[in-house]
Amino acid sequence: MTDSRRGLMLVLSSPSGAGKSTIASRLLALEEELVMSVSCTTRPRRPGEADGTDYRFVDLEKFNLMVEGGELLEHAKVFGNYYGTPRSEVYELIESGNDVLFDIDWQGTQNLKAVARAEVVSVFILPPSTGELERRLEKRAQDPADVIAVRMAKASEEISHWAEYDYVVVNDDLGTALSSVRSILHAERLRRGRQPGLPDFVKMLREGV
Amino acid sequence: MTDSRRGLMLVLSSPSGAGKSTIASRLLALEEELVMSVSCTTRPRRPGEADGTDYRFVDLEKFNLMVEGGELLEHAKVFGNYYGTPRSEVYELIESGNDVLFDIDWQGTQNLKAVARAEVVSVFILPPSTGELERRLEKRAQDPADVIAVRMAKASEEISHWAEYDYVVVNDDLGTALSSVRSILHAERLRRGRQPGLPDFVKMLREGV
Repeated sequence: MTDSRRGLMLVLSSPSGAGKSTIASRLLALEEELVMSVSCTTRPRRPGEADGTDYRFVDLEKFNLMVEGGELLEHAKVFGNYYGTPRSEVYELIESGNDVLFDIDWQGTQNLKAVARAEVVSVFILPPSTGELERRLEKRAQDPADVIAVRMAKASEEISHWAEYDYVVVNDDLGTALSSVRSILHAERLRRGRQPGLPDFVKMLREGV
Repeated sequence: MTDSRRGLMLVLSSPSGAGKSTIASRLLALEEELVMSVSCTTRPRRPGEADGTDYRFVDLEKFNLMVEGGELLEHAKVFGNYYGTPRSEVYELIESGNDVLFDIDWQGTQNLKAVARAEVVSVFILPPSTGELERRLEKRAQDPADVIAVRMAKASEEISHWAEYDYVVVNDDLGTALSSVRSILHAERLRRGRQPGLPDFVKMLREGV
């Protein structure tokens, strides 16, 4: 009766090494009505990444065609590579009452907010300390291009955008951080404006009184 | 480190018979950092009500002195009786990082929002159906003044203000409704603006990078 709802866009951003990917995958496993938005990118595939799951890997020509055809909700150039969000997939999910999870950086978030402000709920995840961030980044370094210093500089730049987000979660303990993001998702679903069936439901209630 | 936080004012409103009082008492039992705001009222004490717990019962002269002394954060006249929220108690709780729970009607909520907009998180609780509302109101009728028709008319008027609230929870199942209100409370604590320690914490993080 008030079950009909319009999905929201849950954005998670953080410096790499703050545990965002782990939170995102746990969240997707726990939340039935939450679906990952898979970005397109011109960046080369890294070992362990799957096409269509982590990213849709496309060449620059294909990417430009998508931009020109208006197929991307937002797109940005980050460190020489292009990233974009396919428009139609996201809106089909939202209209059918699913929420869409975005694992994007501050630039992607700004672009998404510019085109879909009412739908976006943005969460910034912070590491508990610099030492912990450094430790996690060192563990992650896989290829020669993954120089720690470059990653740390990028982390610092990403962190500088924390104040552009609706919510901030410090990932000190994974279980607590996960539960925090779930609370945010559950609460935001209950916002008055996100329950389109309410006016009719209230009308029915009052007529019966 | 980012533990220092400023409390919020969690307002629950609903027509009587929607289960608000049960949700409020369960919430208080489960949430350590949540404290009830006890309103002052000139309304006579009903059987089963305790002075200082349900209300602070005062006479009209005392009430007027409190109003004149600026001791009330907000006050309103409802069905011939006066109700008000003691100011200093609420702010002491909030400054010390506790959240304050308000069980007030739409008028009290409007007044509270007028003086403390940034602190107020407002939740409207709806009954699942008119039949259920009627059944609960009949069960509650205690004294001759409690005429069902009057209560139903008042319920209908209260419901008409649902759209002035941030969140709407339909109390179909008590456990689900309780968990919904808890999610709202937990999420709102994580709003960027409610974590005053964040700017310093982020500065420290970035300096370490």
